[in-house]
Amino acid sequence: MNLQAQPASGHSPYRILREADLRDHLAGLPAIVARLGGAAAEWSISEVGDGNLNLVFIVKGPRGGIAVKQALPYVRLVGESWPLPLSRAHYEHLALVHQARLAPQLVPAVLHHDGPLALTAMELLEPHIIMRKGLTGAISYPRFVEDISTFLARTLFFSSDLALSAAAKKEGIADFAGNHALCKITEDLIFTDPYRIAEQNRWTAPWLDATAAAFREDLDLHVAISRLKLKFMASPEALVHGDLHTGSIMVTESETKVIDPEFAFYGPMGFDIGAVIGNLIMAYLASAGHERTPGERASFEAWVLDAVEGVWNEFSRKFLALWRSEADGDGYPLSLFAGEAGAARLETERQAYIARLFQDTVGFAAAKIIRRILGLAHNIDFEWIADAKQRAICEARSLTLARTMMLEAPSFTTIGAVTYAARELRHWLPDFAR
Amino acid sequence: MNLQAQPASGHSPYRILREADLRDHLAGLPAIVARLGGAAAEWSISEVGDGNLNLVFIVKGPRGGIAVKQALPYVRLVGESWPLPLSRAHYEHLALVHQARLAPQLVPAVLHHDGPLALTAMELLEPHIIMRKGLTGAISYPRFVEDISTFLARTLFFSSDLALSAAAKKEGIADFAGNHALCKITEDLIFTDPYRIAEQNRWTAPWLDATAAAFREDLDLHVAISRLKLKFMASPEALVHGDLHTGSIMVTESETKVIDPEFAFYGPMGFDIGAVIGNLIMAYLASAGHERTPGERASFEAWVLDAVEGVWNEFSRKFLALWRSEADGDGYPLSLFAGEAGAARLETERQAYIARLFQDTVGFAAAKIIRRILGLAHNIDFEWIADAKQRAICEARSLTLARTMMLEAPSFTTIGAVTYAARELRHWLPDFAR
Repeated sequence: MNLQAQPASGHSPYRILREADLRDHLAGLPAIVARLGGAAAEWSISEVGDGNLNLVFIVKGPRGGIAVKQALPYVRLVGESWPLPLSRAHYEHLALVHQARLAPQLVPAVLHHDGPLALTAMELLEPHIIMRKGLTGAISYPRFVEDISTFLARTLFFSSDLALSAAAKKEGIADFAGNHALCKITEDLIFTDPYRIAEQNRWTAPWLDATAAAFREDLDLHVAISRLKLKFMASPEALVHGDLHTGSIMVTESETKVIDPEFAFYGPMGFDIGAVIGNLIMAYLASAGHERTPGERASFEAWVLDAVEGVWNEFSRKFLALWRSEADGDGYPLSLFAGEAGAARLETERQAYIARLFQDTVGFAAAKIIRRILGLAHNIDFEWIADAKQRAICEARSLTLARTMMLEAPSFTTIGAVTYAARELRHWLPDFAR
Repeated sequence: MNLQAQPASGHSPYRILREADLRDHLAGLPAIVARLGGAAAEWSISEVGDGNLNLVFIVKGPRGGIAVKQALPYVRLVGESWPLPLSRAHYEHLALVHQARLAPQLVPAVLHHDGPLALTAMELLEPHIIMRKGLTGAISYPRFVEDISTFLARTLFFSSDLALSAAAKKEGIADFAGNHALCKITEDLIFTDPYRIAEQNRWTAPWLDATAAAFREDLDLHVAISRLKLKFMASPEALVHGDLHTGSIMVTESETKVIDPEFAFYGPMGFDIGAVIGNLIMAYLASAGHERTPGERASFEAWVLDAVEGVWNEFSRKFLALWRSEADGDGYPLSLFAGEAGAARLETERQAYIARLFQDTVGFAAAKIIRRILGLAHNIDFEWIADAKQRAICEARSLTLARTMMLEAPSFTTIGAVTYAARELRHWLPDFAR
């Protein structure tokens, strides 16, 4: 099917779909009917959305199943008091098309998109689970490093100035410029609120009260997060997923699927890479809180740290390989690096470029960790640690690492330095636990 | 008059205007008729465009005069073989409206804009002359530093993340994204061609043959210019004029008017500031070539170097003052820098921001110098030096300075270091002149 031909296909007026309405809508779509099989009345429909923003329906028929996502005109988690534009479904669809072109095995296939309804039907991912859930259960994913590094390298490289003409890049930036309400959520919740008094902030009290207060007073950290925020707002390096934590990745042992790119926009590459790495680091440092007997998760923890290293090392290896073989963009024109000496000098510059990207990645990873512990949206890596004090210990270790990563990013010259620092903190005890 | 209400006013189909056609067109516009006075048949119309791209008409009536600029669907200098979109007139008008709002005394007032005709009528600047012409004649401009620093500080600050919400900034970026054909000219002619063999390059042969060849082989320089090119393409810091050389500035002793912003787009601030500084440096180092007796232009030359320092110092002073008093943007939120200690830390960060901007400025200034000596478009600062060898000496001094500025930008920590280096080269002789 031609995905590019899809966006304008539907023209129903927007309404929040109930089960019967959705059934009628889908029954009018031959490709969906064929995939589900049977009569519409036979399909089972259940709303399963456990995310923060949208409705998600699972629809199953005699032949197969689909997932249907509909944007609500407000934040589901909060309600109508926090409006959010439906246009995010349009940007999510655009991003899915981009990703499907570049990494077709690593995103759900889009079956149908209705712009006015802010609705997208996709293949049902089964028996995939949200990766974050698997990580809390100490499950390791042997395909993950290979898949996510491919996803990152290809989606970022091919939307960068290294692969695109400046004209095509500017058109891409303009295509996503309207998604600023979603960017604003990130700007507030990740890059601002955790560092100031904000009504929505929460943390594991009382143990982290002093740390939260210290983060609100730490001006070095405020400068660092402000620089990262400015980079997030004004460095359109590539089309980023924009929300690439382990809750946006569905996995089995043999498959990896990246979902939910509604925060997509042209931003800094390090934001996506840092999201993956920051969330793996949290899975590692949360692991102690899920132990029933000491050491029972040791091999899982070793795998997670290997994965942190693997994500960066494989991403950078693949990204550099693409740059060497598929650099059709206006950045670093090959005509300025002719001959053997030119090729060698360009290779040195590629390494310098990747080293700068690594610094960004370390900083953004730290920002993603801090927001999950001191900001509005927490994650089950920590939340499912029932003993609050034990949870606070894991969170304090993570905050200590993140603060160092954000303030001293240049001292982390390799990903090994990051995993070393994480390992050093695995048994560290904050004052309140001594 | 409400400039915002103008853009959609005209809907004539595009045609290249001849004198009679223009007369008819203007006669249908009451505001223009009132300004010119008399009957349309009495108006004098002359085409005076000496720029590279457009038609420019001067229209005078019994009461007053206007300037009319019409874009051609190709590069005037080259002809129909080099097409260029008419949409540049739209972007130029958008930029003029932006500049008129922020620095109304420093740009020509727009009287009429016709989108489909790619035509803009503006106040006639009289007796202003192109600043570059005045500089070759050793005329100094006592208002210039004050005016251009105001223009730069206000137009750049108020379109930056320091003054705008991230949403408004993204909308601005999208508004100008379509002007990529003009950006492409800059990308090619400034950031690429002078450093490689390109048919359109020219230089003062034979004296500069060896230098031109050395620049084409200098891989450090190729890395530096490629980094600047990437910054030009992918750092939408503010709405820049995009072509702010001394040929885009009209002056009298008491007035400064910035014209021709058709290259406007969201790009790095240092590109505009560097354009002004680079072109003043060329005026300084070209001055020796215009001497009839040694030292006769000494006071002019002293003024030009003072102006170089003044442009940076006054720009940065005004920009920082705006940041302190009018920072309504999403960058560096004040809530993260509360209290006396916060204010002090933010002030330190402002200085660091300005220091980074100065590095960009030095690099872009160097790029602007090199393109005028080794690339396609030369300037009268050098071209009007009749003695080719003398011209080459002035150009060699400029290239030597520009190469150092581009490769060792961090060693120039103050603008005084730049003028010192320029002064040191004022009497330096390249090998071919020894």
